[in-house]
Amino acid sequence: MDVELVSIGDELLLGFTIDTNAAHFARQAAAVGIRVVRRATVGDGAAEIAAAVQAGLERTGAVITSGGLGPTADDLTKASIAALFGRGMTLDEGILEALRARWQARWSRELPEANRAQAMIPEGATILANGHGSAPGIWLEDGQGRWVAMLPGVPREFRGMLADVLLPRMIERMGGAGATRVIRSRTLRTTGIAESAVADALAGIARKTLGASLAYLPGWEGVDLRLTVRDLVPAEADARLDAAAARIRAPLAEWIYGEGDEDLAAVVVQALRASGRTVAVAESCTGGMLGMRLTAVSGASHAVMGGVIAYDNAVKVRELGVHEATLAAHGAVSVETAREMAAGVRTRFGVDVGVSITGIAGPGGGTPEKPVGTVCLGLDLGGAVSAQRIVSIGDRQEIRQRSAQAALAKLLRGLRSADSAVR
Amino acid sequence: MDVELVSIGDELLLGFTIDTNAAHFARQAAAVGIRVVRRATVGDGAAEIAAAVQAGLERTGAVITSGGLGPTADDLTKASIAALFGRGMTLDEGILEALRARWQARWSRELPEANRAQAMIPEGATILANGHGSAPGIWLEDGQGRWVAMLPGVPREFRGMLADVLLPRMIERMGGAGATRVIRSRTLRTTGIAESAVADALAGIARKTLGASLAYLPGWEGVDLRLTVRDLVPAEADARLDAAAARIRAPLAEWIYGEGDEDLAAVVVQALRASGRTVAVAESCTGGMLGMRLTAVSGASHAVMGGVIAYDNAVKVRELGVHEATLAAHGAVSVETAREMAAGVRTRFGVDVGVSITGIAGPGGGTPEKPVGTVCLGLDLGGAVSAQRIVSIGDRQEIRQRSAQAALAKLLRGLRSADSAVR
Repeated sequence: MDVELVSIGDELLLGFTIDTNAAHFARQAAAVGIRVVRRATVGDGAAEIAAAVQAGLERTGAVITSGGLGPTADDLTKASIAALFGRGMTLDEGILEALRARWQARWSRELPEANRAQAMIPEGATILANGHGSAPGIWLEDGQGRWVAMLPGVPREFRGMLADVLLPRMIERMGGAGATRVIRSRTLRTTGIAESAVADALAGIARKTLGASLAYLPGWEGVDLRLTVRDLVPAEADARLDAAAARIRAPLAEWIYGEGDEDLAAVVVQALRASGRTVAVAESCTGGMLGMRLTAVSGASHAVMGGVIAYDNAVKVRELGVHEATLAAHGAVSVETAREMAAGVRTRFGVDVGVSITGIAGPGGGTPEKPVGTVCLGLDLGGAVSAQRIVSIGDRQEIRQRSAQAALAKLLRGLRSADSAVR
Repeated sequence: MDVELVSIGDELLLGFTIDTNAAHFARQAAAVGIRVVRRATVGDGAAEIAAAVQAGLERTGAVITSGGLGPTADDLTKASIAALFGRGMTLDEGILEALRARWQARWSRELPEANRAQAMIPEGATILANGHGSAPGIWLEDGQGRWVAMLPGVPREFRGMLADVLLPRMIERMGGAGATRVIRSRTLRTTGIAESAVADALAGIARKTLGASLAYLPGWEGVDLRLTVRDLVPAEADARLDAAAARIRAPLAEWIYGEGDEDLAAVVVQALRASGRTVAVAESCTGGMLGMRLTAVSGASHAVMGGVIAYDNAVKVRELGVHEATLAAHGAVSVETAREMAAGVRTRFGVDVGVSITGIAGPGGGTPEKPVGTVCLGLDLGGAVSAQRIVSIGDRQEIRQRSAQAALAKLLRGLRSADSAVR
């Protein structure tokens, strides 16, 4: 099924709002075999809305609109599309009652006259229930099977209604999910390995025999590997993805930490909890980001005790027991200092694992020997202390993000090898 | 000047990439009086590209494209638009030479044959220099003054070329910046005050006499107030915004921390440095986020010493000197504990200011007396200790963000009132 998307709103055209609904829709639709062949963004004017919807109907016969369903005079989506279909507007008593009840319950007020507009719908339209807000969606269809689905623009409502109502309706229209040919993707997440090294590791796998297309998506979290299959029935698509993912996993097992949008910190907290270990952090250039990542995970309190933000060198000495002599001989950004920070926080906090980060996030502070982006990571795992030096690219923010991610990756590898050694 | 925007790329249609260029263009263009009246997003097919550009040219005579200028076979923007204008393609020796030099300098390699396509341009086209990447932009115009500007889709290149080359060219075409009627906005940033309280504070200012439209934009950072004027020459637009901003500032001075996209942490670090004060943080539920915010500011090392992440209660007692009796009597999430955390970290780190956060970020841990979102903030400013309790809304991530922001706001108000007391 081919569809077009029309996003409606002056805020979008003026650039005050970034349209995230469109990308969300496209991904969800592709996964069930619906292809977005074109998108348009127009302002709140009735003529513009009608023209964009009409053009879409002429090309594909199927248009989804987002936005312009609110109660204000700006919101002309329903009326302009009704006119395009040659339909009048009619008051829906059910919607009116629901609006009245909502106003009474939430604000103890009568429904304002202006908001009655939300209960007006095109004649012959089907109402799409909105379980996430006040404005219902509308489905309008002509005698030739051409249709427009109108959804609210608020992302939470748009996404909720897409999942609850619109996607099931479109799938049914295509004759059920099993019969449809789909585009499906699966993403394997690696970290701590460069894009070129991933390519070397996968050099033995011929692209032609993989049965799926493979895209490299490098970012500060690592290199994601996206496998995509097209034009297959769902069961076959999933089987192909399973087989391709297994082949890629084998040579990259050490570097893969998750799938989809899984977060490395969540994987680390899970590994800590599974092994019954506690952790504390010692952070210099990241200033608390590593602690923030770990404690962002719900349930982190079972494993994460806390840590020390040792931004100033005096704090490294006083709170973490780093030796003045180490700082003098090797500098604050050195594997030696990273080792002492990790060991210091582990001992001090009485935990199983200490992790440390000390580096130069820039823009100032770089030298020829230690350029901006030089970061040293330390790990004390039950008394076994290690450290490594990495050089990250990007601006201050990105260097900090990459540093915290690299520390998490080091921690995960440490936990994995400690546990495999025990077995 | 009215223009249309055509974003090109299968990645956009599939939803794997979110189009941020379009919103950026719209904001930049509006500020100099150029209005985006419609946007379209199409895939990499030559026919689709040509159809979208043609429709835009028919409506406005002015189209900007983004994307599809790379060296691969997918990149058909130039050729399809050349065909639309009835032009052939020709090799530009200057571009070819620049590409060769780039490949030699960066990779010590000959230019691959496939990349020669980047040096092909439509006959009669003007080259738009790209100071941010390898693919130059293209300006193509017909005999009736209708034009298409083609820019690369990589956001860094798109934004750079827009500022360097395309905006100046469009402004010149409109007869210079001074003559144009523009849309301009100014945003005042408030924090620590609810949207309804902002409305009450501004109740005395009649909208009609303000001379600018006013939008409330609430988010986790606070409530931004966006003033917008339309259809004025630049000098008058700025004067109107100045006057309106001054009227809004008066009743909200205590809550306003900046303009535009200014960051509260940067304002706080600036205030600390201006007053010669140092700070340390004590964080429980935010787990390092406050420290991360402060140290994200370049130059923070002059004011930020570090802190303690006291996620576990034992750490609050041992590292910050919180009394067991306080925890037993009032709980970890209490103004009493927040006070002891702030005072403890200030004394322990030997700094001028201690700031603390302790709260319930959820999803678990709430009680009827202390629901999820209950957060206590402490401040020790040179021995004067205060604390407050707030209740934040949102999910775990948002509660943590709002908490760190509220702690920064508390710190800023403390610094301001301490400094005004001295004067």
